[in-house]
Amino acid sequence: MNTFVTKSLTEHNIKPTFPRMKIYEYLMEHKNHPSVDSVYQELVEEIPTLSRTTVYNTLHLFLERGLVQPILINENEVRYDGDTTVHGHFMCRECGVIHDIFFQDLNLDDASLDGFQVEQKQVYYNGVCPQCK
Amino acid sequence: MNTFVTKSLTEHNIKPTFPRMKIYEYLMEHKNHPSVDSVYQELVEEIPTLSRTTVYNTLHLFLERGLVQPILINENEVRYDGDTTVHGHFMCRECGVIHDIFFQDLNLDDASLDGFQVEQKQVYYNGVCPQCK
Repeated sequence: MNTFVTKSLTEHNIKPTFPRMKIYEYLMEHKNHPSVDSVYQELVEEIPTLSRTTVYNTLHLFLERGLVQPILINENEVRYDGDTTVHGHFMCRECGVIHDIFFQDLNLDDASLDGFQVEQKQVYYNGVCPQCK
Repeated sequence: MNTFVTKSLTEHNIKPTFPRMKIYEYLMEHKNHPSVDSVYQELVEEIPTLSRTTVYNTLHLFLERGLVQPILINENEVRYDGDTTVHGHFMCRECGVIHDIFFQDLNLDDASLDGFQVEQKQVYYNGVCPQCK
């Protein structure tokens, strides 16, 4: 894991400090789209010197460098996804879990985008997941 | 306008008080996807007793009743759209303007949604708009 983490950070022009490596490793091992707070809660036991600000700043640096993508499906908090491929997210209004939704092909019929330079595309769904129905 | 506003609120089970009517009227007349703060700033001159809390609570009531939809494209603030039809939003990273993007047909190739009960669908784009390119 360590080599992969160091390589990913370095390739995105991020100096691989210890907290950055642990935070990225956490994102790679937990595909539950965590918030700043949940990353902090999970890692603070192992790294007692960690602060919420460090987690926040680290995740923002990851965003800026394209190492993670933001999920803005919940108006109360930003969630982070270590998978930067184009895919959708479904948030269940019962259990709050955010599921990944994969597309065969995300060619949206969006003729009105002519002239726009698209750099990022996000598709969000809200509703009820199969477990809660 | 007044009749239309009263009818829309009543149809969504919202008692048409004066501030609610003014806020909904503002959304109908301004398609710039305003935030709580910009609605407040625009209306407080006309309604000096208006508070940010009233604007916030009113927009949340509108959301709950399906009269408006939230736009969560900007991680710093929720924006509100009085047009509840399914369409996308493009936010320009240069000028910050949020443009409406209309689809001919929003049939996403999302086989992995089998079993999910979809109640809302949002498509967001980020990039540079034609004016800023």
